[in-house]
Amino acid sequence: MSQAPAKPATAITPTRQEEFPEWYQQVIKASDMAENSEVRGCMVIKPWGYGIWENIQRQLDGMFKETGHSNAYFPLLIPLSYLAKEAAHVEGFAKECAVVTHHRLEAQKQDDGSVKMVPTGELAEPYVIRPTSETIIGAAFARWVESYRDLPLLINQWANVMRWEMRPRIFLRTAEFLWQEGHTAHETREEALAETAQMLRVYETFARDHLALPVLTGEKSPRERFPGAESTLCIEAMVQDRKAIQAGTSHFLGQNFSTASGIQFTGRSGAREFAWTTSWGVSTRLIGTLIMAHSDDDGLVLPPRVATQQIVILPVTPKEDSKQAVLDACDALAKALRARHYAGEPLRVQVDRRDLPGGTRNWEWIKKGVPLRIEIGPRDLEKGSVAVSRRDQGLKEKAFIPTEELVQSAADLLEAIQAGLLARATVFRDAHMVRIADRAEFERFFTPQNAEKPEIHGGFAVVDWAGSAEDEDALQKQLGVTIRCLPFGEEWLQPGTCFYTGQPSARQVVFAKAY
Amino acid sequence: MSQAPAKPATAITPTRQEEFPEWYQQVIKASDMAENSEVRGCMVIKPWGYGIWENIQRQLDGMFKETGHSNAYFPLLIPLSYLAKEAAHVEGFAKECAVVTHHRLEAQKQDDGSVKMVPTGELAEPYVIRPTSETIIGAAFARWVESYRDLPLLINQWANVMRWEMRPRIFLRTAEFLWQEGHTAHETREEALAETAQMLRVYETFARDHLALPVLTGEKSPRERFPGAESTLCIEAMVQDRKAIQAGTSHFLGQNFSTASGIQFTGRSGAREFAWTTSWGVSTRLIGTLIMAHSDDDGLVLPPRVATQQIVILPVTPKEDSKQAVLDACDALAKALRARHYAGEPLRVQVDRRDLPGGTRNWEWIKKGVPLRIEIGPRDLEKGSVAVSRRDQGLKEKAFIPTEELVQSAADLLEAIQAGLLARATVFRDAHMVRIADRAEFERFFTPQNAEKPEIHGGFAVVDWAGSAEDEDALQKQLGVTIRCLPFGEEWLQPGTCFYTGQPSARQVVFAKAY
Repeated sequence: MSQAPAKPATAITPTRQEEFPEWYQQVIKASDMAENSEVRGCMVIKPWGYGIWENIQRQLDGMFKETGHSNAYFPLLIPLSYLAKEAAHVEGFAKECAVVTHHRLEAQKQDDGSVKMVPTGELAEPYVIRPTSETIIGAAFARWVESYRDLPLLINQWANVMRWEMRPRIFLRTAEFLWQEGHTAHETREEALAETAQMLRVYETFARDHLALPVLTGEKSPRERFPGAESTLCIEAMVQDRKAIQAGTSHFLGQNFSTASGIQFTGRSGAREFAWTTSWGVSTRLIGTLIMAHSDDDGLVLPPRVATQQIVILPVTPKEDSKQAVLDACDALAKALRARHYAGEPLRVQVDRRDLPGGTRNWEWIKKGVPLRIEIGPRDLEKGSVAVSRRDQGLKEKAFIPTEELVQSAADLLEAIQAGLLARATVFRDAHMVRIADRAEFERFFTPQNAEKPEIHGGFAVVDWAGSAEDEDALQKQLGVTIRCLPFGEEWLQPGTCFYTGQPSARQVVFAKAY
Repeated sequence: MSQAPAKPATAITPTRQEEFPEWYQQVIKASDMAENSEVRGCMVIKPWGYGIWENIQRQLDGMFKETGHSNAYFPLLIPLSYLAKEAAHVEGFAKECAVVTHHRLEAQKQDDGSVKMVPTGELAEPYVIRPTSETIIGAAFARWVESYRDLPLLINQWANVMRWEMRPRIFLRTAEFLWQEGHTAHETREEALAETAQMLRVYETFARDHLALPVLTGEKSPRERFPGAESTLCIEAMVQDRKAIQAGTSHFLGQNFSTASGIQFTGRSGAREFAWTTSWGVSTRLIGTLIMAHSDDDGLVLPPRVATQQIVILPVTPKEDSKQAVLDACDALAKALRARHYAGEPLRVQVDRRDLPGGTRNWEWIKKGVPLRIEIGPRDLEKGSVAVSRRDQGLKEKAFIPTEELVQSAADLLEAIQAGLLARATVFRDAHMVRIADRAEFERFFTPQNAEKPEIHGGFAVVDWAGSAEDEDALQKQLGVTIRCLPFGEEWLQPGTCFYTGQPSARQVVFAKAY
């Protein structure tokens, strides 16, 4: 047997193969993106992680505005009675609501003589910190809409929300998270359905072109719907342990929330009608998804379009007498690069002047996943070239490129990395999305070959399906899998025989384990 | 006696002179910027108001990044014990804390057979919704800092915060508000003091150049300091009822919070030292300030740099056969304008195609404070010109400008409006900032001439001062005035005699009534 080569001390331990969930935590730690806080289930998003969120926000926000939406802001607190207006809705969120019951603190002397701050000023009606804002925004819409002329209302909110998670996982499932929630109201059912579909397409485009995630799009089964929705559309990503992540949802709410909140208008015929509403959202979960989809055993790998920094310039200054010239050249290069654009935005470039051993500094940036690293030393200066390393290529590959050529081609290099990540993720997904015909094969597909690594299993199972919600429950209990979506497209509408019930089925669905 | 001319029905009722506080509410209502919500003291910021906040955010954020700061995000909830770590801090905020005590809801059957959702899952330790984040960010900084090499930490957070206000006023004092809070940690006292001063300069520059607010800068008296700070610097604006608004603060926190949170590092000498910290913030209060400073009896007046839209184009389409040509010309003009820049940003231009009577539509935009209105009708098309109205000029003034010339000069027109607002506010402030020598004059200055309009009084009183905190208390009780700041600059350091105590004084201070 051949011995595995010694791993460099600087790579991530464990590897993806060894223990995927722990690898994920270590990638986040090594890249300095975020950390758990002392508040249960809540994270601190550090500058390297928050920079990604800022890029996601700015780029998505542009897409929302291009499709006619405006931003607004609604209260963080929701009166308990509001949440209760829609029965399915409150039932869906009741178990994870943070409840505000008091509005002041008072110093109270304890028996041991010490002083403790205790809540006082009890509220007549408690408030819930928004887990989502349909009910509070619905109340505003009810005030704003009088006639069909006031429709459509196309509103988005960037905000924090809170869902008291019992098993938090950084970025993927945290008690507090950052998101955007779109809320729209329409005159007709058709318009609302079109909006629901349009925003799913925006998410799909954004996931593919900005995050390099080749997501499936489709509809959720009734069992997996948003509480209170008539239908929930979703984008589903596959990550490297072959599990699914629901990365974004777009809900058609019918007239459920407009009825509950009283969003009524005088229609063209003069009759009072209830509006048709939608809601749609993506969150900081997207960051967890891209980490799990693209990163490797050396650390984070970032799609250039959303990378906090796209290029880091590393001055190599072995000798004091050439040091200033090298530093000046680095600053000049940074300036020249920042004047160039990639995907409509100025290049994001940082010069790392820290006086650290070259290897240490280089490894730090590898683990942070910066797409391009550029080294400049005294000899490069003489030659008028720079050493360029791509994060998506082998660690020892370096290209020596004339400086001016690099300035000209940097955007192309970033685009090559972006396209390469998408291509690799697509190949991976397609390799692990398998047509499965019968129950035994389905069970084998989802049974880990190695009991110690339950995360290594088949992937996405494409099956003929005509089962019920109870059948889904049974499969989840047995194998930990759920229907991720009923994908869109004619190719998924082949008649067949349900692999589980043996009944005739009209379409295929995708089962997977999911985060 | 001459009769006052009849007021147009479309202007704001009441006027500023008639009843300033109510005028303020009506300007907000008429411009559709924001409204009170059903959550006590919390507002809904509507798109026209939120657009201003987006511009403020983007522009300030650029200034923070230019001065080396990075954004990050910290938990919304603060463990009660954290808040209590700094004694003055918790005392300062205890009376206005929203407290989370439970983490789920449960349906409970009532005696009358109905079902009610009640809080359950009581927390072992309650959380407070952040009124400000010194303590939770301090805990993170304590983890992040080990050596002097890790300093300075220069962090900013854009977030919502909550302070349970007993007398809320939209934008100016709301239970929940949006803000940014900068938090920095430094190796030395000098560096932290320099940061505190630098960020105040950033605020002053932003207020002057972006919001057209000629603010006073200075230090707060000890009585008005942020709870836990060693010193608090501020910018103070004067609004049209001659009251002051504290529009931004920058705090030097000394080692108070680093000691409370354990932000310790190994210094250059090898000894363990506590870091020196600062914090600084501005909020959605800035929007209230600019409304009160610039608006008039016809409604909102917006400084162009932060206006949600800078230009609105109003197609005038009296005849069906020329309608399409007019609409096309409006779209073409909008496109040409959007390709131009003002103050480094593309012009923000909207075409209002709504089929409303011209007067109604025009008045709507006047009340919304859009800096430039452009009308295009069939006759303008023939002449190749447009009718341009400036919000800062008389309502009936219209300039007819060749279309191409307007495209060329739009940015200059906006800059003229921006500069004009600043000049007007400066003249107003200087006219109502009065040197006052003795107590009787001071009392007259702050006593309303008309008891029915307590808001009409002198303005900012500049006085020689050598009083104590108790003297400040007494003056606040007697006249409702406070020291707004000890302004910076040598001109404020003239020796004299305290107008109140008769003692020798080393400097002047500014007293005013304040929001």
